[in-house]
Amino acid sequence: MKKLLVLPGDGIGPEIVAEAMKVIDHLKAAGGLELEIEQGLVGGSAYDAAGTPLPDATLEKARAADAILLGAVGGPKWEPLEIALRPEKGLLGLRSGLGLFANLRPAILYPQLAEASSLKPEVVAGLDIMIVRELTGGIYFGQPRGVRELDNGEREGFNTLVYAESEIRRIARVAFDIAAKRAGRVCSVDKANVLECTELWREVVTAEAASRPDIELSHMYVDNAAMQLVRAPKQFDVIVTTNMFGDILSDEAAMLTGSIGMLPSASLNEQGQGMYEPIHGSAPDIAGQNIANPLATILSVAMMLRFSLDRSDLADTIEAAVGRVLDQGLRTADIMQDGKRRVGTAEMGDAVVAAL
Amino acid sequence: MKKLLVLPGDGIGPEIVAEAMKVIDHLKAAGGLELEIEQGLVGGSAYDAAGTPLPDATLEKARAADAILLGAVGGPKWEPLEIALRPEKGLLGLRSGLGLFANLRPAILYPQLAEASSLKPEVVAGLDIMIVRELTGGIYFGQPRGVRELDNGEREGFNTLVYAESEIRRIARVAFDIAAKRAGRVCSVDKANVLECTELWREVVTAEAASRPDIELSHMYVDNAAMQLVRAPKQFDVIVTTNMFGDILSDEAAMLTGSIGMLPSASLNEQGQGMYEPIHGSAPDIAGQNIANPLATILSVAMMLRFSLDRSDLADTIEAAVGRVLDQGLRTADIMQDGKRRVGTAEMGDAVVAAL
Ligand SMILES: CC(C)[C@H](C(=O)O)[C@@H](O)C(=O)O
Ligand SMILES: CC(C)[C@H](C(=O)O)[C@@H](O)C(=O)O
Repeated sequence: MKKLLVLPGDGIGPEIVAEAMKVIDHLKAAGGLELEIEQGLVGGSAYDAAGTPLPDATLEKARAADAILLGAVGGPKWEPLEIALRPEKGLLGLRSGLGLFANLRPAILYPQLAEASSLKPEVVAGLDIMIVRELTGGIYFGQPRGVRELDNGEREGFNTLVYAESEIRRIARVAFDIAAKRAGRVCSVDKANVLECTELWREVVTAEAASRPDIELSHMYVDNAAMQLVRAPKQFDVIVTTNMFGDILSDEAAMLTGSIGMLPSASLNEQGQGMYEPIHGSAPDIAGQNIANPLATILSVAMMLRFSLDRSDLADTIEAAVGRVLDQGLRTADIMQDGKRRVGTAEMGDAVVAAL
Repeated sequence: MKKLLVLPGDGIGPEIVAEAMKVIDHLKAAGGLELEIEQGLVGGSAYDAAGTPLPDATLEKARAADAILLGAVGGPKWEPLEIALRPEKGLLGLRSGLGLFANLRPAILYPQLAEASSLKPEVVAGLDIMIVRELTGGIYFGQPRGVRELDNGEREGFNTLVYAESEIRRIARVAFDIAAKRAGRVCSVDKANVLECTELWREVVTAEAASRPDIELSHMYVDNAAMQLVRAPKQFDVIVTTNMFGDILSDEAAMLTGSIGMLPSASLNEQGQGMYEPIHGSAPDIAGQNIANPLATILSVAMMLRFSLDRSDLADTIEAAVGRVLDQGLRTADIMQDGKRRVGTAEMGDAVVAAL
């Protein structure tokens, strides 16, 4: 039987994960889903309980699981802590500890929510981009890093951007494989005109594409990509990029849809083991008020069924159910519009279960 | 007498600079502007003529000048060259050689061009953000950098992000001084939850703000900033950030206006010496066709008069003249709209001179 580790995390994490669990429980009861489920601590809540954002027990459970469902981590409460103890380190520790190098972040505009975008309808209608972000390398994990004292007595902060050929090659392959099931176009984003590390990135991605006649590869500098996402986002099919550039561009792309509360993500390793989470954060300001949107987490369950649990059929079912709930006019506060019915977190989760 | 060095550069650089020179010549003849003018080579055209994107003669002339007017550099012709010989290195060499650490990039929506934005009018109407980008430090210039071979035989590319306290402090001061003449709000953008270097950035900016009761300082992670620029850009007054984040966010912000052909920039050193250039690139695909928009370069002349030549009066005159030309309905191809009159590069320059 497949194993799922559930990590609610901080802020709105527990409440949105609770709604996703309703969906999973329903599929276990009615959809023939077999799944052994464990819970674990990560982030600020783990720090509060165990003095570390990533307890050994959590990492062990994660290693033993086929899939991990994560809510969100972080909050102002833990911001005064040093970087090594912050909630984010729990997330980063899971990513690197499990080798989750491939982060898939779709930016999809739901037709029912077209109005929510700050962009003109004609610019974003039908938007469907997949951002493939490298997740266990680059400047996020590069050594050396820290703060040192200079001879003149002042301090200097430093980090290292580093990529080996093999790291670049494997993320390029993931992007190519995903694109092959879509429009077949991959845009690799770098800053090869300034950074030697990303000059190597461009070279390796280009070489890797040579054996992929099914893929149309282009390259773009990151500053231009940030512009093009605003100007004409529909020009993109799949974007593949580094950890840091992917962090920035995937959030920008997500916001083009105007409904970041709708977007799931998957982080996969070479064995197909995956961690699934909404791309929005822990939103501590609205935690515990039953107003957060659980749909991104529920859609993360769909990605999990597709990529780690070999149940694409159930993934399709969930996505269709979410579509129906939107068609019914149900909206949480973040996606509320005139003429629609405003519902809370729990009511939205129940509605999806009812629509299943 | 003040000295100006003119560096037309590559692509559309020479033709847009030629229009800016018409404006300068007019101000010399009719506006009481005293200025000694020299020309120089930089970028790909310098490489073609002298084998290097930044000839010693150019750097010497630049050091002796009060202000530098640059067109743009770069083009596919020089992309096969190694990084050290590319046109971009000419630009980076000028920035670091002259210590031009403060890059001011306004993102302003001209009311006459409100339609050009891909964002909804209500989201961007009246947009006026100033991005203050650190320009001579960070990962652009950090050492060590390059490509090395690992023990297992594969190559690894690496770059170093590094900031000393003094570098952070001086750019924060520039941002505070600029904000003091605007709405007084500065948002410092970093990735302090992941990168130690930008944790120091946040600490130093915060400390520097303690003696500035006139400034309201906030902090934002770069991924969130990339989102907020799309969601609600008018929340920002002044943004201060690192070289790399500034490269990305300033281009994103510029594109919010939809008229990147309209936006100038200034790069200043501690002595007030400055380099002025349009933020758009060299657009080699349209070079030599008399269709490029010269207004960003002409508006760069206005910034130059204000920041390096102590002639704010003439800067105001130029900006007013550009407004009048837009009011008259004249548009280059990039900002063309129904019902307006399409003009070429030279005609646009002439129109500004006529409006002066
Ligand atoms: C919380 C933070 C460490 C994380 C990141 O920067 O990767 C987040 O922004 C994300 O994109 O998942
Ligand atoms: C041309 C390039 C080196 C440059 C940069 O990255 O700084 C450009 O994008 C800019 O923003 O001025």
